[in-house]
Amino acid sequence: MSKGANTRQRIIELAAPIFNQRGYAGASMQDVMDATGLEKGGLYRHFSSKEELAAEAFRYALANAVKTRTEKLGGVQGTIPRLRFVIERFVEAPSTVPGGCPLMNTAIDADDGNPVLRELARKGIEDWKLRLTAMVREGISAGEIRPETEPRRIAHALIAGLEGALMISRLEGTQQALVDVRATLNAMLDAIAADGPSGVRPV
Amino acid sequence: MSKGANTRQRIIELAAPIFNQRGYAGASMQDVMDATGLEKGGLYRHFSSKEELAAEAFRYALANAVKTRTEKLGGVQGTIPRLRFVIERFVEAPSTVPGGCPLMNTAIDADDGNPVLRELARKGIEDWKLRLTAMVREGISAGEIRPETEPRRIAHALIAGLEGALMISRLEGTQQALVDVRATLNAMLDAIAADGPSGVRPV
Repeated sequence: MSKGANTRQRIIELAAPIFNQRGYAGASMQDVMDATGLEKGGLYRHFSSKEELAAEAFRYALANAVKTRTEKLGGVQGTIPRLRFVIERFVEAPSTVPGGCPLMNTAIDADDGNPVLRELARKGIEDWKLRLTAMVREGISAGEIRPETEPRRIAHALIAGLEGALMISRLEGTQQALVDVRATLNAMLDAIAADGPSGVRPV
Repeated sequence: MSKGANTRQRIIELAAPIFNQRGYAGASMQDVMDATGLEKGGLYRHFSSKEELAAEAFRYALANAVKTRTEKLGGVQGTIPRLRFVIERFVEAPSTVPGGCPLMNTAIDADDGNPVLRELARKGIEDWKLRLTAMVREGISAGEIRPETEPRRIAHALIAGLEGALMISRLEGTQQALVDVRATLNAMLDAIAADGPSGVRPV
């Protein structure tokens, strides 16, 4: 990496927690200058606008969150255990960048706001849903998940439950909501497992 | 109501969607001046600070959301139907104030930010949990809900699922996530209903 590319990357890494914690409107270029020790000119040499920096900071924070949530997933055998692992990892480590899940933060921050960030958040949710629906489909093909299961519904339940629980947990300063929702989501997985208890209606 | 109290109330009502859509940092007193047609002096005659106005705007937006979600609940017989009604109302009308659920917006906005708003959001979640856990307990006492059910877990699953689904739905501009999560949460209620299918493990 060239010196310029190094500096650019360092700015992104230092800006990510600022945008993740304060939101787009709440984070200022002055905050980033303070964190990086760069002058205004130095910052704008690498980013043409606050919007460009915020977008890069979001991409960096999201890539980190996805990496944390999916690494070691390859070592888990079976679709139901893999889905349980997804839940477990989210509960254990919702984000490596301070400020909570960058996806939810940016989704809430940008749903009536910045269109570039809104589109990045929408794409982040879409990618997450694609990863989860693919896992459910694999499970159906492999006979591990009941064939009547709707993959999209499972993906929505997992993402909504985990993100909603993180919102409550961060507000309360305890893991309780995340731990409770983990149990509920695991019960949902019991209900769609092909070898699960009988008499359970598909979700 | 006196003329002054009327003006104060009108400012709160016009400020509520601004704070709910843009967040605390993104909403400015200038925005509120533009919306109300008041001068700075007129605004500060009623509110000593932006924080005070934001807190009142949040209280107003939340009270409206709670009213929409709970009115007509009294006419629903039975605890399980009442819990289903809570889900239904949230999916149909998540907020009367533009910008989505004020509780989630303020929770995400303030979890690393303004302590007054953070405390109001925390209290809002606590009150919602109290309403839901009371309903589950009533259901257990009445023999309508399985006695091994943990009321707090049901409350967390409902709030997390609904708020998380609203986040996705607003981002995508479709009802799909809310509709899917409604089905998942209704399946959870089937599982805790005393007359539900056998073989379902308690959640």
